[in-house]
Amino acid sequence: MRLIVQKFGGTSVADLDKIRNVAHRVAKTYDAGNNIVVVISAMAGVTDHLVAMASQISNLPKKREVDVLLATGEQTTAALLAMTLTSMNYPAQSLLGHQAEVHTDCSHGNARILDIGAHRILELVEKRQIVVVAGFQGCDPHGNITTLGRGGSDTSAVAIAAAIGADICEIFTDVDGIYTADPNICPKAKKLDAISYDEMLNMASLGAKVLQIRSVGFAKKYNVPVHVRSSFNEGEGTMVVNEDSGMESLIVTSVTHEKDQARITLKKVPDQPGIAAKIFTPITQSGIIVDMIIQNTRTSGKTDLSFTVPKSEYDQAIEIERKVAAEIGAEDVFGDKDIAKVSVIGVGMRNHSGVASIMFNTLAKENINISMISTSEIRISCVIEEKYTELAVRVLHTAFGLDAEE
Amino acid sequence: MRLIVQKFGGTSVADLDKIRNVAHRVAKTYDAGNNIVVVISAMAGVTDHLVAMASQISNLPKKREVDVLLATGEQTTAALLAMTLTSMNYPAQSLLGHQAEVHTDCSHGNARILDIGAHRILELVEKRQIVVVAGFQGCDPHGNITTLGRGGSDTSAVAIAAAIGADICEIFTDVDGIYTADPNICPKAKKLDAISYDEMLNMASLGAKVLQIRSVGFAKKYNVPVHVRSSFNEGEGTMVVNEDSGMESLIVTSVTHEKDQARITLKKVPDQPGIAAKIFTPITQSGIIVDMIIQNTRTSGKTDLSFTVPKSEYDQAIEIERKVAAEIGAEDVFGDKDIAKVSVIGVGMRNHSGVASIMFNTLAKENINISMISTSEIRISCVIEEKYTELAVRVLHTAFGLDAEE
Repeated sequence: MRLIVQKFGGTSVADLDKIRNVAHRVAKTYDAGNNIVVVISAMAGVTDHLVAMASQISNLPKKREVDVLLATGEQTTAALLAMTLTSMNYPAQSLLGHQAEVHTDCSHGNARILDIGAHRILELVEKRQIVVVAGFQGCDPHGNITTLGRGGSDTSAVAIAAAIGADICEIFTDVDGIYTADPNICPKAKKLDAISYDEMLNMASLGAKVLQIRSVGFAKKYNVPVHVRSSFNEGEGTMVVNEDSGMESLIVTSVTHEKDQARITLKKVPDQPGIAAKIFTPITQSGIIVDMIIQNTRTSGKTDLSFTVPKSEYDQAIEIERKVAAEIGAEDVFGDKDIAKVSVIGVGMRNHSGVASIMFNTLAKENINISMISTSEIRISCVIEEKYTELAVRVLHTAFGLDAEE
Repeated sequence: MRLIVQKFGGTSVADLDKIRNVAHRVAKTYDAGNNIVVVISAMAGVTDHLVAMASQISNLPKKREVDVLLATGEQTTAALLAMTLTSMNYPAQSLLGHQAEVHTDCSHGNARILDIGAHRILELVEKRQIVVVAGFQGCDPHGNITTLGRGGSDTSAVAIAAAIGADICEIFTDVDGIYTADPNICPKAKKLDAISYDEMLNMASLGAKVLQIRSVGFAKKYNVPVHVRSSFNEGEGTMVVNEDSGMESLIVTSVTHEKDQARITLKKVPDQPGIAAKIFTPITQSGIIVDMIIQNTRTSGKTDLSFTVPKSEYDQAIEIERKVAAEIGAEDVFGDKDIAKVSVIGVGMRNHSGVASIMFNTLAKENINISMISTSEIRISCVIEEKYTELAVRVLHTAFGLDAEE
């Protein structure tokens, strides 16, 4: 008897018919003799609708209350799926974040899971109940509802899988698996059979949009095998696993792009010790995630400093930095929303040099200007003008030999 | 400084504009130096929509999960109102049923409040926070979400008012106050300035639809003064208070009617000790509230037994009784959904005889047949054919001298 966590995203539970399909899929796995914990998202569109409602009330609605509002989305789906399963005579019970003991910190809208009390889930599982957990939500030490940020249901699923010692965490989604690039803009993209946690970590953070980055971090930390697969067919998807699981190691496994970032630049910042802390502490305290940071030292003792933030938090971030700039005596603050980031990723880079120069040359040949560069052990990312995104992905995909054979 | 509980029903929070109006009303009371706890319902129509969704899944959806689903309605409004208040720079915080420590029994869909831990609410109130509590919901001893039944937010409000020792509980609704009859069908109905708990208890149970009966029971038990008033104007409504509060005592203060009941009759039930328990225990265990019960003994040792239940639970109730009838050897079970109940109510009845005969004669004059009668100390109710409801209310209103002066 295996213990399986199955996570279904918003498009998989978009209406009562689709919820019924999910119930049948869960029931089939249950009937095969497995124990199951289901983690679900809000119905597609619901979270956006609720966010829009909150925006109508205020530009900066109180985050605590936004979480209370958003949590209704997953609560609704959890109740409907449990109801559907019981109407099919399967023993099922919904659990909300606080009931499943998903304990988080107090960072509303982007909370981190501190621990999960597996107790109640396992008690139900032992009675052969199908447990339906509302994803995306938890509760802080004071009992306030928190949410885990966009895609947080993935993190719920993997964290629960880790806490209860599940054999596998299946992420059902509207795509077949992980591709070498976004097939919508790169027609020659191929599905990968397997990918390492580290590659996926880099992809997720770069907008592959299939798995939330924190869920992959959890999976890696607790070594939870994750299977990303389609909720609309029975085909095998992509396994996200340890690097040493005998995967074939390509130099570059994927080309990703991300358009939902914006750049903020502080001009002529006094180059003194502690200045970076002054610039980034207030941003971090607001819960805004800063991605790339570039600093160029100048001879005059002043430096220009650029960084990227999610486009959705750009207004808040630039407001904060205007205050900071005044305090620290920076000359100017400006931003750019028309940027995109393209990246190449692969664990094989560790043993190969020259990947960066192939990337830069490929972009240069198309006259695409690079305005920021950042690298990690297995990834190289370039910020470019947004309008060149699709072109850049396609030429890099070809340059690194990823195109599907005709 | 007074401590006030203000409860707003579904029509008062039907959209964001109306929620803003509620926020202004709450803010005004707060600015006048009062401490406030707000209890809100789901936006008008939301609960019906959710119930319809559950019915699409199953005729008898799992009640535990229906409660999880329904609770999202009040959760949404509580978050939106707290958000609106904070956007207006008022300190406000939402609390869900379990956060406000509204402890109930396990009877899903119709749970009873066991106690309320006033602790958290009072802690916030002492910090001059406006506390916005999601009405209608609580949690059972195992931490499952429960709901209190239709109109349950009234009960939440009064129970919270009792628990925190509020000076008054204001129930804001879409009517001006309590009328001598439903003005929609009786144009001569008048608004009452005050009404006793007992009269209100009888009215509420008979479908006055302004206050849930259990809320009035709570108000009476803990002597909470309740002010029923309009959320759309500033006029005084009706005070629901102790009988000895110096009210003028009329013989009959109101005529009420109720159309959402149905009658079930068991024919030729063996007339043995314990038979009533066999008939009603399974119904009660299903959480169905039986209202009137009439039993006629026959000479043959068999009896006919009729009772009324809410129309919405008729299908479930008759299914249960068919099984019971087979077990106890009753001859037949049938039902009637086309019934209505009209009642006259007044504490003055205690000191006056002849009220019943005026009622029966008045109905007889219009050729309205009475099929069931029940009486209490301050109320007489008759079940009649549904089509005569409006006529019956108007003629009784006139007969008991309640018509407004021209």
